[in-house]
Amino acid sequence: MSESRKLETIPVETRILSENDRLAEENRAWFNRQGIFVVNLISSPGSGKTSLLVETLKALKGKLSCAVIEGDQQTDLDARRIAETGCPVRQVNTGQACHLDASLIKRAVNELAVSGLDVLFIENVGNLICPAEFDLGEHAKVVLMSVAEGEEKPLKYPLIFHLSSAVVLTKIDLLPHLRVDLQQAERNIHKVNPKAVILRTSTYTGEGLQDWLDWLSTQKSQLPL
Amino acid sequence: MSESRKLETIPVETRILSENDRLAEENRAWFNRQGIFVVNLISSPGSGKTSLLVETLKALKGKLSCAVIEGDQQTDLDARRIAETGCPVRQVNTGQACHLDASLIKRAVNELAVSGLDVLFIENVGNLICPAEFDLGEHAKVVLMSVAEGEEKPLKYPLIFHLSSAVVLTKIDLLPHLRVDLQQAERNIHKVNPKAVILRTSTYTGEGLQDWLDWLSTQKSQLPL
Repeated sequence: MSESRKLETIPVETRILSENDRLAEENRAWFNRQGIFVVNLISSPGSGKTSLLVETLKALKGKLSCAVIEGDQQTDLDARRIAETGCPVRQVNTGQACHLDASLIKRAVNELAVSGLDVLFIENVGNLICPAEFDLGEHAKVVLMSVAEGEEKPLKYPLIFHLSSAVVLTKIDLLPHLRVDLQQAERNIHKVNPKAVILRTSTYTGEGLQDWLDWLSTQKSQLPL
Repeated sequence: MSESRKLETIPVETRILSENDRLAEENRAWFNRQGIFVVNLISSPGSGKTSLLVETLKALKGKLSCAVIEGDQQTDLDARRIAETGCPVRQVNTGQACHLDASLIKRAVNELAVSGLDVLFIENVGNLICPAEFDLGEHAKVVLMSVAEGEEKPLKYPLIFHLSSAVVLTKIDLLPHLRVDLQQAERNIHKVNPKAVILRTSTYTGEGLQDWLDWLSTQKSQLPL
């Protein structure tokens, strides 16, 4: 990295992150007052965040009042998939930006204008790096990792695995067709985050989805809302 | 995005990108003088960049003199896999940064200190967003997309697909086990980049690897070196 870049960006990034943290705390205080449990879903592109969300929303229908904020650089493809479940959804296109931030969430929540919410899911931009640094005011970060991505992602992108309350392993139906050592993947997760809850799931077979719903329910019940 | 962020970051980013572009042109001029063909490989985490590289280096052994620069936030796992092929490799850990830049490449090339190179492969940090904006001085960007990632990535992350000379579809051996429409994926690629060469590959079965090697060879031969 060039010297000029170091000199210029570090103070600016520090200011941005500190301003973001302040807004994130405002968001969290507001979510707490409203009794809304907020989950920030983060993963590589194509790990299956939207598919997990669609199945989750179908399962929670009539039980909990949910809404979704969809973050993508471009398109409203994911928001359309969510809308088909009947769940209120707001698409946020970040353009060149590689992550959502607390101010984008504040605006999207205002625009959603849904009252009586129980759970707000935020689907972040598909990226294991930049979203890790930006607190949105959520109660829990959840990182998804498709088993087709291999065993080493937790070691290569440790921050997001370190910060996440749960790691959802997706597409486990593919395991018989992959040269992937699932136990090694799980050991790698626990190396960077010994407390992480690991959930093995497949939206294709439905395996593990009940465990994921139970985890959500327990997390929500433990909040000081 | 907050107003304060807009005001602060845009001029800084413009300066960084313009300084990066200047260094990238210096790199490219140097690569041209040395007769080195340089490929910048970009994809989501876990799409199979290192696996493709390992198979490529094995196939080119004794035919072309190759070297690799490995970009990762953390770990030297990929560099160790490359080193096992006998190919010179330099690991660059970017720490918090989500992409390589031209100055990191300049330094890594100096440290590699390999003479008589034919091809330099740069494996960028696993990220479809940030690496797209940083010219490294390469002759061709190649984006990899695992078919397990679904059809929509080119529409959601259009910049990198727009800028790439070739799109390597990886893990096509998984197709029978996926609900993925490959033709739709390819239509989406051509929507954002009508000229993109699309290569279907599997390092597991070896399918398509010869097409990829042929593409590399043609590209190298067409350069004004």
